[in-house]
Amino acid sequence: MIDWLYGLVGEGPFPSMRAMVYRGLLVVCIVLSTTIAIVDTVPDAWIGFEGAVSATGGLFLVILSLDYILRLVVARAQRGDGESGLAAMARYALSPYGIFDFLAVVPFLVGEATALMPHDGETVFGILRFLKLARYSPALETLGVVVLHELRPLLASLFIMLILAISASTLIYFTERGANPALASVPAAMWWAIVTLSTVGFGDVVPITPLGKLFGSVVAVLGLCMFALPASILASGFAEEMKRQNFVSTWHLVAKVPFFQRLQASQIAEIAGLLKLARAIKGEVLMREGDTGECMYFIVSGQVEVKGRAGTFILKNGDFFGEIALIERCPRTATVKAVSRCQLLILDARDFHKFVAHDHALLEVIWETARARMAQADHAGDKNAAPPKEKEPV
Amino acid sequence: MIDWLYGLVGEGPFPSMRAMVYRGLLVVCIVLSTTIAIVDTVPDAWIGFEGAVSATGGLFLVILSLDYILRLVVARAQRGDGESGLAAMARYALSPYGIFDFLAVVPFLVGEATALMPHDGETVFGILRFLKLARYSPALETLGVVVLHELRPLLASLFIMLILAISASTLIYFTERGANPALASVPAAMWWAIVTLSTVGFGDVVPITPLGKLFGSVVAVLGLCMFALPASILASGFAEEMKRQNFVSTWHLVAKVPFFQRLQASQIAEIAGLLKLARAIKGEVLMREGDTGECMYFIVSGQVEVKGRAGTFILKNGDFFGEIALIERCPRTATVKAVSRCQLLILDARDFHKFVAHDHALLEVIWETARARMAQADHAGDKNAAPPKEKEPV
Amino acid sequence: MIDWLYGLVGEGPFPSMRAMVYRGLLVVCIVLSTTIAIVDTVPDAWIGFEGAVSATGGLFLVILSLDYILRLVVARAQRGDGESGLAAMARYALSPYGIFDFLAVVPFLVGEATALMPHDGETVFGILRFLKLARYSPALETLGVVVLHELRPLLASLFIMLILAISASTLIYFTERGANPALASVPAAMWWAIVTLSTVGFGDVVPITPLGKLFGSVVAVLGLCMFALPASILASGFAEEMKRQNFVSTWHLVAKVPFFQRLQASQIAEIAGLLKLARAIKGEVLMREGDTGECMYFIVSGQVEVKGRAGTFILKNGDFFGEIALIERCPRTATVKAVSRCQLLILDARDFHKFVAHDHALLEVIWETARARMAQADHAGDKNAAPPKEKEPV
Amino acid sequence: MIDWLYGLVGEGPFPSMRAMVYRGLLVVCIVLSTTIAIVDTVPDAWIGFEGAVSATGGLFLVILSLDYILRLVVARAQRGDGESGLAAMARYALSPYGIFDFLAVVPFLVGEATALMPHDGETVFGILRFLKLARYSPALETLGVVVLHELRPLLASLFIMLILAISASTLIYFTERGANPALASVPAAMWWAIVTLSTVGFGDVVPITPLGKLFGSVVAVLGLCMFALPASILASGFAEEMKRQNFVSTWHLVAKVPFFQRLQASQIAEIAGLLKLARAIKGEVLMREGDTGECMYFIVSGQVEVKGRAGTFILKNGDFFGEIALIERCPRTATVKAVSRCQLLILDARDFHKFVAHDHALLEVIWETARARMAQADHAGDKNAAPPKEKEPV
Repeated sequence: MIDWLYGLVGEGPFPSMRAMVYRGLLVVCIVLSTTIAIVDTVPDAWIGFEGAVSATGGLFLVILSLDYILRLVVARAQRGDGESGLAAMARYALSPYGIFDFLAVVPFLVGEATALMPHDGETVFGILRFLKLARYSPALETLGVVVLHELRPLLASLFIMLILAISASTLIYFTERGANPALASVPAAMWWAIVTLSTVGFGDVVPITPLGKLFGSVVAVLGLCMFALPASILASGFAEEMKRQNFVSTWHLVAKVPFFQRLQASQIAEIAGLLKLARAIKGEVLMREGDTGECMYFIVSGQVEVKGRAGTFILKNGDFFGEIALIERCPRTATVKAVSRCQLLILDARDFHKFVAHDHALLEVIWETARARMAQADHAGDKNAAPPKEKEPV
Repeated sequence: MIDWLYGLVGEGPFPSMRAMVYRGLLVVCIVLSTTIAIVDTVPDAWIGFEGAVSATGGLFLVILSLDYILRLVVARAQRGDGESGLAAMARYALSPYGIFDFLAVVPFLVGEATALMPHDGETVFGILRFLKLARYSPALETLGVVVLHELRPLLASLFIMLILAISASTLIYFTERGANPALASVPAAMWWAIVTLSTVGFGDVVPITPLGKLFGSVVAVLGLCMFALPASILASGFAEEMKRQNFVSTWHLVAKVPFFQRLQASQIAEIAGLLKLARAIKGEVLMREGDTGECMYFIVSGQVEVKGRAGTFILKNGDFFGEIALIERCPRTATVKAVSRCQLLILDARDFHKFVAHDHALLEVIWETARARMAQADHAGDKNAAPPKEKEPV
Repeated sequence: MIDWLYGLVGEGPFPSMRAMVYRGLLVVCIVLSTTIAIVDTVPDAWIGFEGAVSATGGLFLVILSLDYILRLVVARAQRGDGESGLAAMARYALSPYGIFDFLAVVPFLVGEATALMPHDGETVFGILRFLKLARYSPALETLGVVVLHELRPLLASLFIMLILAISASTLIYFTERGANPALASVPAAMWWAIVTLSTVGFGDVVPITPLGKLFGSVVAVLGLCMFALPASILASGFAEEMKRQNFVSTWHLVAKVPFFQRLQASQIAEIAGLLKLARAIKGEVLMREGDTGECMYFIVSGQVEVKGRAGTFILKNGDFFGEIALIERCPRTATVKAVSRCQLLILDARDFHKFVAHDHALLEVIWETARARMAQADHAGDKNAAPPKEKEPV
Repeated sequence: MIDWLYGLVGEGPFPSMRAMVYRGLLVVCIVLSTTIAIVDTVPDAWIGFEGAVSATGGLFLVILSLDYILRLVVARAQRGDGESGLAAMARYALSPYGIFDFLAVVPFLVGEATALMPHDGETVFGILRFLKLARYSPALETLGVVVLHELRPLLASLFIMLILAISASTLIYFTERGANPALASVPAAMWWAIVTLSTVGFGDVVPITPLGKLFGSVVAVLGLCMFALPASILASGFAEEMKRQNFVSTWHLVAKVPFFQRLQASQIAEIAGLLKLARAIKGEVLMREGDTGECMYFIVSGQVEVKGRAGTFILKNGDFFGEIALIERCPRTATVKAVSRCQLLILDARDFHKFVAHDHALLEVIWETARARMAQADHAGDKNAAPPKEKEPV
């Protein structure tokens, strides 16, 4: 029973079908809850639908409450060695996700019970339910890591901006204060300066004297230059972090593919940086006969069906495919379809050539495997009375 | 006949002259059709020209209909082994380009026939004709590939934005709702938040309280930082995809240049990543005597004319030129002009030196070819009674 | 006494506790001074608080004056060999930071004394106090270096912008001058052009004729393209400069870690580019048992406490930790906490593998150290009557 | 005489003093001419100064006319072998710079002569004089090269934008046309779409219906993503082109430094990509004793004065300095000042270590030179009765 429940809320790269249904249900609940809380602030938004909205709200509250209880129960069941059940529940309840789950239900329950919840509270906590979605996106965590790593350059560039904003606003204040009531104090000028430096440019405050416009032009151009700093720091940090996460995950998967075990440590480290992790759902077509071949695939888990001219065969975890088009510079010779959910490692044409170029033995191994598979396919082809082909590997 | 027709609509790196004329005609038709449909929505746009516009519209409809029929016929003629003509036509008709071609004519024909087409329909389908141009630009396909490859980071960054937008709008709503009728509901605040976070800044909704302006400033700066994420993911993905396509195409062309066949697999893989594919039209001047030499060229197809001090000679596919300026650090010693359409592979000065540095044999080969050509040029020079030069290769 | 004072204002990677308190006090003073000067320009901002504000202003003036005197005294005490005390004070007083310190107090003191200081002067010099903060941020210096390094491409791109702005404004002037009073002269059009090219888009001046809007669209798109040039030049220059500063500082620290002394010069140069410098405050948890290991650490200075299953031990400067998770592909086997302020060099999983791949002897050294530590830990474990573990290093 | 004139207008990395004065005079003329033409469009701008402005204009016309004649004469004198003087003048006159020079004077002269020049013509040609500045900035040429190189991806991304703009405007037109008179036609909607997609956001046209605002939000975000494509293509192309130009110029200069002649071709190619070209004016201080050493210098041309503790000596073209701080990890041991204009090649600490790491012989050579110089300095020191130092090279 606990296992079945755990299956519902468990995370992992390969959730079960019921976990995915449950997750889908939760996402719909959360998105609708937040949407209702947002639209609810529009006066007369629900006229004629008050009952329906109220009922839906109640239903969502019940579902989210059950979800919270479920997660508490599962946390208790999953307690570590020598940990008390209460400690395990507290650990979950005090984790960020636990707090998000708490905020999504408890304020409403208390509000219902005490009738003390103000309308604004409903709005705020309703919108905050959105945070529950954070569980399903690694983006926030990644961003947090990036901000932490790049904190010093980020603060440095924010400091530069601040100096720019203060200087710009002081300058424009002295230039415009006589002529322009909207720029009659430095704080007002600062609002203008930040809006201009960030290139937002609302237009509610605009310099009107010629000298003010000249300064304004310089500020607009300066802002464009300076404000690119934090954006580019974050963007490149984000890109690097994603690459690093990719390395860590592919490097752990490389050990599962027999082919790579033939490589030396240095080659494994090199290729793990080149491989890209991909997932395929059941039925997804990975390559089509006749396409230009741009990469080869290694199967980490799952099975694929290879359908070539000489018949059909199955490849499973540890196998690779798609290498012929890279070696022979010919179009794909078969169509490959995932017959179950697959984890795949992809190696680009360019990286493939760079990699095998250093080591002819490697190419030999790939080529032999291809030839063996070809022979097997020919054999299958003979049985199916199909004409033998010159080569079959894909 | 079919071949001639196929020549009209066939794609490929080297379209024939009639294909280019046909393509030009089509592009004009499509651009004008779309323009007419767009301008048509301006009231009284055509006063005094109703007849002309209507006639032009009819003409375009006929041309585009004929184009659709032509493509169907060609698709039928080009059917694969064992494919029925109908299946081949259906395959074309259901491909994206086939659907675009269909939408460009059939709704209008049906409208003409039944007189049931509303004016709005004409506008929409007229504008949709623009999609036919997608056939001539690889950009949309490339973008599709990039979006697919980078889907997870893109979604991650969109999720971050959404959280930012929701938080910003909730905050500004509570700050401004009393004072600012334009921010009296969260959805209205959300419009402001997205407009500000994307740095568009229309200015139709602006915070007016001091605290609102403070939050607004923070949102403007935050937005600038966060919204750089998807832009930079897409931009770098796009750049990488173009580099990858360049590798695949140059790597296939390298085999056509005899010089590269002397290289080992590792060197071919390396140089294929350095070469850039270029095309030259007939009569294009590729280098001019006296210029600084920044690259050398390998001819994949076509012919060029080399006009140096010692006379003129022709180089054709498989040859290379422009190497002397890179080896000798001297200006170009000849002017080179394409005498037919050419496909060229370009090797940069920097990459050239990096590449030949590892392998003196290579430099030797290039140098010998240059010397041989020089001797030949001297010989030609003698015949033309021009004074012999010390060296002639370009 | 002088040493104690010097401890207050001294800079360095590891300021003493009293230096940090002093620095914090100063930062608060400066930020509040600037804020008061800014808010002071709002009419009637202080109604009812005039006395308090004036008193605070006086207090800040006293503190900042004392700070200036203190720095002069310390500068005198720190004079070089054969330098007179006056020369040392002058050197400080004429350095940028000395000038900032001077501007923060002397104009006010003179103003108080002579009663000749206009209100605007107070505003300007009050805001200028902000510059004193520059001492605590390397950002401005870095930016200066970058602007200097990239001056030529920056000027080049500014020149392109200027040409664009002039052309755009001339064009729009001739298009709109009849219809649009806001664009009736080229300087007015130039304001519009710069606001549009920088994508600020205030909206105070907007083309209204169809042709003007067409030109306006082209200018908006062109601007977006061209204005990315200086932004990207600065952004990439800034990133490179920070990388270079990181190299210089890590390269000086590498010599303090005994492990690196075993490496050859070429390896030190390589690894110094890979290492990242980090600081940890007392009590900071550097890794937690059970986490995925993404990097290893080298201690430059300070001490950390390693708490594993077999007991607790201390590592100090020259040691490294976190290597097991990288070698064994297992989660962290211990929790590590800084017990004093630490300077650490961090080596990423990816870089670690690239680096050790070339040299098995290196891996051997790391592995042996780990084993020795493990044995020691086992020994400690035996004494604590904890069951011996298979491996203990973290 | 012709040589003296040629010295005035000649280009080159090291212009003579009179060339620089002439160039400065011309730049002032051009900038003022353009400024006058721009300000001239403001009604009543010159009231009371008509005479002065008119006289200045006449003076500038005379100067620019003389400049044009001078350049024609010099072009004639500089004709190639076997070229007629007229052909040489025509070649100059038809070059872009020749045309700019022509436009700057001839229309005015014709206007003066015929009195047929309209006022608008004066404005246009006056502003066009600005183009003469292009001669002194390589930016436009570089940009042209980049646009040409990246034409295909640029067009591709412009096509994507166009599709986005057309789709967005059609959608918003159908959503808003009833409610919003400003969006009552597709062309009007297109103006809005482009202004929004480019994130300019004037705010003169804004969606007002809820659905229109929803679409508007999507367009704002989409635009931000898509419009980053051309900006990033141009920015990275520009950066790469500048790097390539740097390689070509440093690679030509490397041959002038004796030290590099000891290197192999592969090393020269490598180091030429690492070196940065810098220029120093007479009297510029290149490094200061006590600074942290971040790079070493190679002198291509010119002389520097090294002032260390043991005395002063001169280094000239072919020498290098600044290596001790990189080898010994100590602060600079001397102050170096340019005593004439210098061309220098700079090698970064990071690149220095990467480079010498591979080859101990190289380090040996640098070290020996340093020691020899040290001995010489000691000798000089002895003569100056300064105490001998342990090491002297900088």
